[in-house]
Amino acid sequence: MPIERFAENPLLCPADIEPSRDGFEVIGTFNAGAFRLGDRYGLLVRVAERPVNDDPALVPVPAFDTRSYPPTATSETLRRDDTLWDFSTCVVSPAKNNPVQHCRLTNLSHLRIAWSTDGRRFILDRSSGSTIWPDNQFERFGIEDARVTQIGGAYCITYSAVSDRGICVGLLSTTDFRLFARHGIILPHENKDACVFPEKIDDEYVMLHRPSSGWCRPGMWIARSHDLTHWGRHEFVAAPRPGRWDSRRIGAGPPPVRTKDGWLEIYHGAGDDGYGLGAVLLDTDNPARVIARSREPVMLPETDYERHGFVDNVVFCNGLIQENDAELRLYYGGADTVTAGAACIVRDLLDSLE
Amino acid sequence: MPIERFAENPLLCPADIEPSRDGFEVIGTFNAGAFRLGDRYGLLVRVAERPVNDDPALVPVPAFDTRSYPPTATSETLRRDDTLWDFSTCVVSPAKNNPVQHCRLTNLSHLRIAWSTDGRRFILDRSSGSTIWPDNQFERFGIEDARVTQIGGAYCITYSAVSDRGICVGLLSTTDFRLFARHGIILPHENKDACVFPEKIDDEYVMLHRPSSGWCRPGMWIARSHDLTHWGRHEFVAAPRPGRWDSRRIGAGPPPVRTKDGWLEIYHGAGDDGYGLGAVLLDTDNPARVIARSREPVMLPETDYERHGFVDNVVFCNGLIQENDAELRLYYGGADTVTAGAACIVRDLLDSLE
Repeated sequence: MPIERFAENPLLCPADIEPSRDGFEVIGTFNAGAFRLGDRYGLLVRVAERPVNDDPALVPVPAFDTRSYPPTATSETLRRDDTLWDFSTCVVSPAKNNPVQHCRLTNLSHLRIAWSTDGRRFILDRSSGSTIWPDNQFERFGIEDARVTQIGGAYCITYSAVSDRGICVGLLSTTDFRLFARHGIILPHENKDACVFPEKIDDEYVMLHRPSSGWCRPGMWIARSHDLTHWGRHEFVAAPRPGRWDSRRIGAGPPPVRTKDGWLEIYHGAGDDGYGLGAVLLDTDNPARVIARSREPVMLPETDYERHGFVDNVVFCNGLIQENDAELRLYYGGADTVTAGAACIVRDLLDSLE
Repeated sequence: MPIERFAENPLLCPADIEPSRDGFEVIGTFNAGAFRLGDRYGLLVRVAERPVNDDPALVPVPAFDTRSYPPTATSETLRRDDTLWDFSTCVVSPAKNNPVQHCRLTNLSHLRIAWSTDGRRFILDRSSGSTIWPDNQFERFGIEDARVTQIGGAYCITYSAVSDRGICVGLLSTTDFRLFARHGIILPHENKDACVFPEKIDDEYVMLHRPSSGWCRPGMWIARSHDLTHWGRHEFVAAPRPGRWDSRRIGAGPPPVRTKDGWLEIYHGAGDDGYGLGAVLLDTDNPARVIARSREPVMLPETDYERHGFVDNVVFCNGLIQENDAELRLYYGGADTVTAGAACIVRDLLDSLE
């Protein structure tokens, strides 16, 4: 296996942070985007919270009220024996005869910055400017899974915006991680796992994304843009592979890394046994073209913090920092609960592809 | 009811056209986009064909091979008792244990032009330049339901591109309906029912569209663009309404019409009893804002050609020609089989909204 977990893992845990409001508990500090700002390492961490609930017969389904900023949070409580709802997964889905026509979540996410000087020991920033809250109707159930791409002196941040209107891709930008500009919804539902390439190709920005519908199993797509806000020229990149570890769904991870062989992209795949990480190599000039792909996963859930948590058996990477041409540091979520890190040698990853 | 069907209906039937290839039959000439070119009326008709099959135990599932243009067509044949597939709707879906991971169709659509001098009697153009065929991997199961918007001297055409990769929105443009430029996929799956406004608003092109996912019932959204190819600033416009005629899904019809009260959009809605047409009035300066909407449908399937066909009980409108400020001609599909027409007075439609 070409990936080596940090000895310091897990790097961030729910116990590291106080709940943002009375009556809530933190259940996840995970799926962090990663970046460098000056001589510091930064993580943009997804913080998931839920209403405290001691009664297994009840299921609170909270939502943000985004008329104020930071938003307030409200919660309805459903009964677990209510046949109008399906509680079998971590998404609460309406049954066919339910007049409510959209899914709900049992927890709400926002984004918070953590800083490090060595990329291994991170401290959550508790200042108010270091938290990004949902602020519109498309984010009432939370904002999740940020990918940070540095383009020159600016950073663009793609994330999942979740609400009763679906799961969409939103865009933020910043130069200092104190002030953030919002650029609205750049891809409508259902789409997630979007990450922007760190440079233009053929004079256009390029982004991987993952549309989902009932028509086919979710795979990786690519789109292009002149301004990062308006996207077109959508093309298919890669699909789940029947019978393999990534048979059910795949999606891009952190922004691709330029290598002399092509763009190296770490992706997540889910099969019958949970989530793993793979790698795919995309053509330098036409990144819609796959040159090579992991036959076997480059990382599977193995440690306790990857195997047991809010969702068992998940490694999910959306943060990456290139140390130099030879080495990558991956920041990944374990079991939808903690943030962990790992190092790998680019050459080893490339050599593992078929 | 403010809408009056043409006495000439249906305007186009499957019997009006020869199959494009041996072994196929035409089953639909429907869901036509509409436009004016000089002193002629034009329809861009969806022509649906399927392999001839006399054995009810068999279900042919055809596909285009787009390596040549016009494309060739191939067909696999499934057995209706094959438990790997679900044949209960007109889309053939894989069962959970099927290694094939995408839906199939039982028929293939292309687009063909019909001309008229009075807007009521149309003749299909049989010249080769008047047919638009699928020509890439995103169109292997056909191209469907064109919306034509005239912007100055050019026309932009949005349509559904269907393949094993999902149902996406494609864009064509033309000035003469002889030569067409292709602009690729402008919205990834699952999305359809896209139509472009006939003028820029706030210096951007504007488009209605209809994303779908399992998260919520499909509704109308809006997006904006500087160049018609790259789209962003997605916003929600309108949802299905529980307990009403449009409770299951809604989608935009033909391009919106500017009135002094706002943008008038004819949309389709499906509830428990099939498809009907409604109208919605959008704010002139901010068309994401709904000012008024049909309480009751403005048109429901009533005639034999609307109630019986490939899909029973469907009226679906994606073509409209404004005769003058006061009158509209709607071109609509009946029962997913024929093209029909109807006239209405703009004022009557506006007065019917709540």
